[in-house]
Amino acid sequence: MRLVAVDWGTTSLRGALLDADGAVLETQSHPRGILSVSKGGFGEVFDSLFGAWMQPPNTRCLISGMAGSQQGWIEAPYCACPATPADVGHAIVDIEHGRIAIVPGLQCEHDGVPDVMRGEEVQIFGAMALAGLEDGVFVLPGTHNKWVTVQRGRVTGFRTFMTGEFYALLGQHSILARMLDADAPLDGAAFLQGVTQSGNGEGLLHNAFSARTLPLFQRMPVAEVASYLSGVLIGEELRTQSLRATGDVVLIGTPSLTDRYALALRSKGVATRTFGAEATWAGLYALSGFLDNP
Amino acid sequence: MRLVAVDWGTTSLRGALLDADGAVLETQSHPRGILSVSKGGFGEVFDSLFGAWMQPPNTRCLISGMAGSQQGWIEAPYCACPATPADVGHAIVDIEHGRIAIVPGLQCEHDGVPDVMRGEEVQIFGAMALAGLEDGVFVLPGTHNKWVTVQRGRVTGFRTFMTGEFYALLGQHSILARMLDADAPLDGAAFLQGVTQSGNGEGLLHNAFSARTLPLFQRMPVAEVASYLSGVLIGEELRTQSLRATGDVVLIGTPSLTDRYALALRSKGVATRTFGAEATWAGLYALSGFLDNP
Repeated sequence: MRLVAVDWGTTSLRGALLDADGAVLETQSHPRGILSVSKGGFGEVFDSLFGAWMQPPNTRCLISGMAGSQQGWIEAPYCACPATPADVGHAIVDIEHGRIAIVPGLQCEHDGVPDVMRGEEVQIFGAMALAGLEDGVFVLPGTHNKWVTVQRGRVTGFRTFMTGEFYALLGQHSILARMLDADAPLDGAAFLQGVTQSGNGEGLLHNAFSARTLPLFQRMPVAEVASYLSGVLIGEELRTQSLRATGDVVLIGTPSLTDRYALALRSKGVATRTFGAEATWAGLYALSGFLDNP
Repeated sequence: MRLVAVDWGTTSLRGALLDADGAVLETQSHPRGILSVSKGGFGEVFDSLFGAWMQPPNTRCLISGMAGSQQGWIEAPYCACPATPADVGHAIVDIEHGRIAIVPGLQCEHDGVPDVMRGEEVQIFGAMALAGLEDGVFVLPGTHNKWVTVQRGRVTGFRTFMTGEFYALLGQHSILARMLDADAPLDGAAFLQGVTQSGNGEGLLHNAFSARTLPLFQRMPVAEVASYLSGVLIGEELRTQSLRATGDVVLIGTPSLTDRYALALRSKGVATRTFGAEATWAGLYALSGFLDNP
């Protein structure tokens, strides 16, 4: 069996063609997230992008991400935590029986407040498979970052942090926007100064204002403010979460983001290991073992 | 002497005509904040709005707020904390000698990071005069809230919180925006639920996401989400600051904001007293005693 593995997110979509052993033969990515697809238009978009890959007999497709949400192709109800790969695999929802199926997301709850993920669970299972890990803290940076606890092969719980979205809001729409050069390369020292600032425990609402006063008083070059603010935000996450990490932290995502978390965590004495897109493909491959026979 | 007291802020401007005893004879307000005035155009705007009040002989004008910033009419350099009313009074800057003058703002510093205010110092001095207070914690809600410590008649330090701006950013531009009915009246129970949520110490980046998941899982009516998010934000301020308040907290601002802080602080067992625009007029009147003779 060949597998067409697809991570269909809110703003973008990535796919890989895997052979029977899970080796990646080809990949593609497109700015065709679910927000760009009209209700009822998913089949057509899928065929236009993956029709050629799906041609040969004995080819299956497994999709993860927001395509399984209410606003997606078909809704795949969340699995409750704690959840093993098998729990998620058995909850896979058919789109076209024997041909295309979709992975559900995960749901957990803290003190009566639900939390959710869609797509990250596949990356976690993939990294667990690639690294041979059954326990650990996994961090998946992005618009809505996830801090995830894995114990004895099960995702036991997680928390979402709106770090990426807050960074975009502050950089684009706030009073800080005109001081921020979002395209400036990361300045490691300014970034770590921001991480340290958040360690004062005075909270993001206060510490974010220092990204205004430091350049206002010529205490920081404007070119460094974006890196500093990124550090303040990620430092605020670490302030509440990094103590949960007793061993290494596994980072999964694009290098431009995972590098920042690695830098911040290292400054706190926490070692990291990092996975990228290969975790997604390995996760979908592992879950494809639970697909029904056609 | 009659005093034309003006609070000239970023987005709006308020003025009051005071008699020799500081009694308010008339007030006016306009959407003519400094952002709406071109550099060099302040004198003309002032004359058009306050020319009639300034006609009688022996009339002086004292201005506070962002009109004293780099982007304002004339820059009045910040006074350093600790600062008494006399320290600020002696640093008043003339615009037209013997006729129009401007109050400087305050600056303090925590661990190498500066913090600033412009206009709030006048409200604090006014509330101190009206209440006969020499010590206390003063909170001035707004786009950039201030928590201020006053000891023996001096402003010893303060912290800015971007609470109002974060609320606007999340309500207008974030993923929460479509769930938020910003015009819904305050729901006290949902607001206090948000305050309690922030008490978990998991940080704003995480707790803000609960304003998405609670309605998503039908745990909260959409009409209550704006009040809940307001509580999460104000609760995050209180988590870090309210322990500094050993006695009553003095709130200064518009009732729509001070009411929320009073509610949140009361839920923590902290009593409050509240002042509005009268604090501004009393502060400018008190500082007018330091104006030079013409």
